Amino acid sequence: MQPATQTPALDLSLDAAELTAQLVDIPSVSQDEKVLADAVENALRALPHLTVERDGNCVVARTHQGHAERVVLAGHLDTVPIAGNVPSRLDEDGVLWGCGTTDMKSGVAVQLRIAATVPAPNRDLTFVFYDAEEIAAEFNGLGRLAEKHPDWLAGDFAVLLEPSDTQVEGGCQGTLRVLLRTAGERAHSARSWMGSNAIHAAAPILARLAAYEPRRAVIDGLEYREGLNAVGIEGGVAGNVIPDACTVTVNFRYAPDRSAQDALDHVREVFADCGVTEMIVDDHSPGALPGLSHPAAVAFMAAVGGTAKPKFGWTDVSRFSALGVPAVNYGPGDALLAHKKDERVATDRIRHCEERLRAWLTA
Amino acid sequence: MQPATQTPALDLSLDAAELTAQLVDIPSVSQDEKVLADAVENALRALPHLTVERDGNCVVARTHQGHAERVVLAGHLDTVPIAGNVPSRLDEDGVLWGCGTTDMKSGVAVQLRIAATVPAPNRDLTFVFYDAEEIAAEFNGLGRLAEKHPDWLAGDFAVLLEPSDTQVEGGCQGTLRVLLRTAGERAHSARSWMGSNAIHAAAPILARLAAYEPRRAVIDGLEYREGLNAVGIEGGVAGNVIPDACTVTVNFRYAPDRSAQDALDHVREVFADCGVTEMIVDDHSPGALPGLSHPAAVAFMAAVGGTAKPKFGWTDVSRFSALGVPAVNYGPGDALLAHKKDERVATDRIRHCEERLRAWLTA
Repeated sequence: MQPATQTPALDLSLDAAELTAQLVDIPSVSQDEKVLADAVENALRALPHLTVERDGNCVVARTHQGHAERVVLAGHLDTVPIAGNVPSRLDEDGVLWGCGTTDMKSGVAVQLRIAATVPAPNRDLTFVFYDAEEIAAEFNGLGRLAEKHPDWLAGDFAVLLEPSDTQVEGGCQGTLRVLLRTAGERAHSARSWMGSNAIHAAAPILARLAAYEPRRAVIDGLEYREGLNAVGIEGGVAGNVIPDACTVTVNFRYAPDRSAQDALDHVREVFADCGVTEMIVDDHSPGALPGLSHPAAVAFMAAVGGTAKPKFGWTDVSRFSALGVPAVNYGPGDALLAHKKDERVATDRIRHCEERLRAWLTA
Repeated sequence: MQPATQTPALDLSLDAAELTAQLVDIPSVSQDEKVLADAVENALRALPHLTVERDGNCVVARTHQGHAERVVLAGHLDTVPIAGNVPSRLDEDGVLWGCGTTDMKSGVAVQLRIAATVPAPNRDLTFVFYDAEEIAAEFNGLGRLAEKHPDWLAGDFAVLLEPSDTQVEGGCQGTLRVLLRTAGERAHSARSWMGSNAIHAAAPILARLAAYEPRRAVIDGLEYREGLNAVGIEGGVAGNVIPDACTVTVNFRYAPDRSAQDALDHVREVFADCGVTEMIVDDHSPGALPGLSHPAAVAFMAAVGGTAKPKFGWTDVSRFSALGVPAVNYGPGDALLAHKKDERVATDRIRHCEERLRAWLTA
């Protein structure tokens, strides 16, 4: 066994695709990122134009060139558990296979390449590498930094290099999950008139959901699509008992022009006259505005090209948004291949991503 | 320990209340009825006017006096598990306490007293004592006899001495339980328009249930009350997934003028246009007609007095009904005290029940 002190040395002179392979070959399953975080920290400390901070397995490196604008490039170091897909393998079509190739060591490789090869950027840069993105939110390294060191994350605009097939995905929708409860009175089902049926009492809730017309909202030219859905329903005591309780779990995905409070108020209003006896907020993560009108974002869009798309799912960009930093996803991998045994990435997309970001930051 | 061969001797010269105490003091929890069944068989074999049959722990005794009519008096020998309430205890108010006092050793005592003290009845008599009524239907001794020896149960009218507070409860309602399934298509709840929500698809089912007006049916002067109720609902995959399946479990309790097929057809019709993708029959026990217009029943009603009430719950009377024998419940105990630790019966009701049955069968 290798002693823990033997930190592998990253070679930042490799191109982003070769560097991705090197990163994949250093396993870093969530909560086991120390070796990779050490390697990243060592590689960054070797670059004289950067100052480097460390918190647990988060590493933050910054330029200090006195520019009026600062942009953040962020990515997580961890992966889902390895599924027999490490070490990486490059096939004859230039596709790199392995755990984390798409989500998101290719993005991390691009961050490291920019850090190493753009010593005098046209905007000040902050590189954030964080841990535990793939597990429960409470462990998320970016969340920890936002709480403990918000100044490390300060900036005018942020790019999260999550897999987006090198398409810009702006902001993200919020997600609110509530439990809607109805009540009744138990009775033997042979004498149902002695009781009151809580499942029947949920009929107006389901009718309201089925009839709901979700809103579409255009923000910074991106069209967001909301959704209000039952994701669970549960009720019943026994096969011969009129049930006294039923719970509908509802998930509201909302466009980032709604605040968390607006979202909650909207859900309350939708179900106001549906016989809900109790509404419990089970989970709530507000959305993030795309912020594409900021000059740094406009320049970014011009450099990377294409048309920005709205991000429907919730992502860590909203952690930047909560700090007042507009953020987008832009990374080389295909999100649909993330977490799969056959996870892979086209190496030309990694190089393309690196080139586009360099173009933006050196123009 | 007593050897298993020492069968306790029942003293049928005791009055029905004293005999009830003797029966309670011989434990006979479901599937452990052998000692009591042996005692009952021995006591009946000592009566020269009866022939006696035995099947497992069922005992059937019959008169053969050539009457045009035959009536059946039936009761189960088993009890629910003892809850520290054996042996029996008679309090100063004439109330007998103990496991099985109401459900239904007081009824069994009345059967045994009639068997012993009415050697020349005005109708031929069949006494049925059976096992395993308190557990799953597959073990029910009356069901076994109906299958193996239907001739032993033949008759024009049957009285099941289940606790009914010496009120006649006629027939019983049927019970049908079906699973109604809806289908959808999974999708991430952030992109709900990519899927189709099976819980929302259940909205018409719940609306139909909530709006359903149950029928009341008057049969032989008894008013039955039907009921159609959700007794369970289940759906959901995860907190962020549009669910592709939802199941509503519905229980239809129906008046005995509907056949099993009618009941099934009715449920199909009620939910015909509600988007049900699959309907599965989970459980089905048809009802039993009260048969109170039969001459033997008319004479019975005249002898026992009072007004018959409909039986809403499903009971073993429907096993007689299935054999073409109309049946009622009529017994000394209070059904609401059955299965309770403080189970008890007023001894004067036991004697009253014995007297009324003797009056009917000797008039």
